[in-house]
Amino acid sequence: MRSLAKRLGGLALAAGLFCAAPALAFEGLVEKKVFEMPSYTTVGGGTIKNVRIGWESYGKLNDARDNVILVTHFFSGNSHAAGKYKMEDPAPGYWDSIIGPGKPLDTDKFFIISSDTLVNLSPKDPTVTTTGPASVNPDTGKPYGMSFPVVTIRDFVNVQKALLDSLNVKSLHAVMGGSMGSLQALEWGATHPEMVKRVVAVIGGAEADPFLIGWLNLWAAPIRVDPNWQGGDYYGKAEPKAGLTEALKLVTLHARHWKWADATFGRGWAEEGKDPAASMNNQYAIEAWLDKAAAARAAVSDANHFLYLVKANQTFLVGGGGSLDEGLAKIKAPVLLIPSADDLVFPPERAMRPLKERLEKQGIAVTYTDAITTSLGHLDGIANIAKAGDAISAFMAK
Amino acid sequence: MRSLAKRLGGLALAAGLFCAAPALAFEGLVEKKVFEMPSYTTVGGGTIKNVRIGWESYGKLNDARDNVILVTHFFSGNSHAAGKYKMEDPAPGYWDSIIGPGKPLDTDKFFIISSDTLVNLSPKDPTVTTTGPASVNPDTGKPYGMSFPVVTIRDFVNVQKALLDSLNVKSLHAVMGGSMGSLQALEWGATHPEMVKRVVAVIGGAEADPFLIGWLNLWAAPIRVDPNWQGGDYYGKAEPKAGLTEALKLVTLHARHWKWADATFGRGWAEEGKDPAASMNNQYAIEAWLDKAAAARAAVSDANHFLYLVKANQTFLVGGGGSLDEGLAKIKAPVLLIPSADDLVFPPERAMRPLKERLEKQGIAVTYTDAITTSLGHLDGIANIAKAGDAISAFMAK
Repeated sequence: MRSLAKRLGGLALAAGLFCAAPALAFEGLVEKKVFEMPSYTTVGGGTIKNVRIGWESYGKLNDARDNVILVTHFFSGNSHAAGKYKMEDPAPGYWDSIIGPGKPLDTDKFFIISSDTLVNLSPKDPTVTTTGPASVNPDTGKPYGMSFPVVTIRDFVNVQKALLDSLNVKSLHAVMGGSMGSLQALEWGATHPEMVKRVVAVIGGAEADPFLIGWLNLWAAPIRVDPNWQGGDYYGKAEPKAGLTEALKLVTLHARHWKWADATFGRGWAEEGKDPAASMNNQYAIEAWLDKAAAARAAVSDANHFLYLVKANQTFLVGGGGSLDEGLAKIKAPVLLIPSADDLVFPPERAMRPLKERLEKQGIAVTYTDAITTSLGHLDGIANIAKAGDAISAFMAK
Repeated sequence: MRSLAKRLGGLALAAGLFCAAPALAFEGLVEKKVFEMPSYTTVGGGTIKNVRIGWESYGKLNDARDNVILVTHFFSGNSHAAGKYKMEDPAPGYWDSIIGPGKPLDTDKFFIISSDTLVNLSPKDPTVTTTGPASVNPDTGKPYGMSFPVVTIRDFVNVQKALLDSLNVKSLHAVMGGSMGSLQALEWGATHPEMVKRVVAVIGGAEADPFLIGWLNLWAAPIRVDPNWQGGDYYGKAEPKAGLTEALKLVTLHARHWKWADATFGRGWAEEGKDPAASMNNQYAIEAWLDKAAAARAAVSDANHFLYLVKANQTFLVGGGGSLDEGLAKIKAPVLLIPSADDLVFPPERAMRPLKERLEKQGIAVTYTDAITTSLGHLDGIANIAKAGDAISAFMAK
């Protein structure tokens, strides 16, 4: 039996949940900046003081300030969409394959900006700046924990809007995002139709359907079972690392596909000589890989932030309330939909195919590309976005 | 917003993970019997003393003892495949729609027998008799816990063989099972080709592929995170009920489909007036339903049994070792494959479609029916098996 170490030799995907495919790095180094708001009131009426959000940009803002493309990030992602902070960084940002000079999101033409969301999954990642349950509540001097207000995709958009206001940006050439980023992109289109000229939604949809709501509940479940979670009051104590790791394993596997599992692991064992049938403790290679990949991710993540992200995704219905069609009717910009054929989180037949029809019924110009047909499942929308590069280039030029 | 109570009014599926579709009960009452073995040695070399397994039958064994159909059960199922124990039972056994006089598994012709597996999920269900980690080890006078030997699908088959030997049954007209039951049916075909005349595999496959191995790991994960699990040593103490419930929620949702979720819940709230966006504790209807359905199931289930079932499924490769093709080559009987079109656990394109080709390459006569195209996902193979009734009748008559 092939050992895990052998199977994983050279596997570029081992480092995290989502890694960009090999590609040329964005030219020039990227600088992470921080946007601050003294106070933000959520859609639900909660107040968050001292909001701090990381952001970065690629390319140059033109004098008219109308060459801006906003890139919104996925569940386990952050604002690092392209380039490197230091030349020695092992990998560039996640969509580096389509962001850069001459690429579909052409930094010779566009000013591309990306920000960390509220309640970003990875507050312990030194490159991430976010505000969420792990942040200190200035009123108490202690981390918020579960007293942090519920936030929604619309709240993410509102904070991004404030960031753009601070840069005096009044027009967006496009908003583009993958997975949870696509929810934000569509929400931008619905809530700021006067400002958004194009929407690019990748591997996502305009609502959390009930099956996805159920799955999101289950992603979060191991955290709540972990005795260290303590109702979210674990800061300064032992953290619910085991539960968070299992939660991240669920995200990792759900975002992939059996084609990937077949090609990468087969029924290989985790360790040579340790037959999984011989002991309850012996594992298959894919099990050990999931443990390792998720543990690495858990080291920079926060369990409460995971729960708040789950809630933000569950509550998403584009345009804020009413029906799906009412929300979609608010969008005026043309929309480019980019599904991944093998997506098991947002299956095209449930998410983007019916969305295309609904948008067209509202009179919205829709471009739909089936270009992404590789074998990573949902993750293809991040790792293999370059396959939709021509469609993106054409859409940006329209 | 519609409340959960309203949405669930009259929902026949609420009682458990798998419930048979409404159908006429098997005529006559069913009696549960117990088969005992003083000692059983597992494929892995472990010894289990005092093996006790429940079983039941429908129809009459003929004089030649060659009219036997063995029905093997699914992960969360048991030997109650048809009929009622008492007239007032709320529902008959899970495949009652195809078992009975004049039905595809015709009790006027066949003697249908079904037994509880080793490590059956539900040792606390009074109608189930099984031997597993929750059983008392006669050598210590205490429950085995995780000292119970690893058991495999082949072990399930070996115990069923001993039961049939005790009845002096030397020939099987057919072996038929759904999901984990299909693994057993195929394993019967590979290990007793002289005895098995027909194999009917429903919503399953001939191996646990690596993606499924990963999912099974994740099904089990909440149990191991639960502080009450205590390495499996929880008998007589607080049990890992929260972890077991979350594990059963995973099984429940994975075995269903977004079409079911859309039709049953939409984005409805769990409680009128409690907007899920207003509080981290407010839920959508599907979340509350999952909690309730799984909690009911957890009340009769055992967490360690769940872990042992996961292992038995993960280690499955038909024919016991070597390659898939080597295992399949041992099968001589014709095979009927019945997938569910929307199955997300054993997707037909990953499981039964390639299996059909592999079997045919071995010269095995395969019948494949696409008759099950309803909206419950994997569960359709249990709840809507009657849709394949004609195919089953024809196959049994061949």
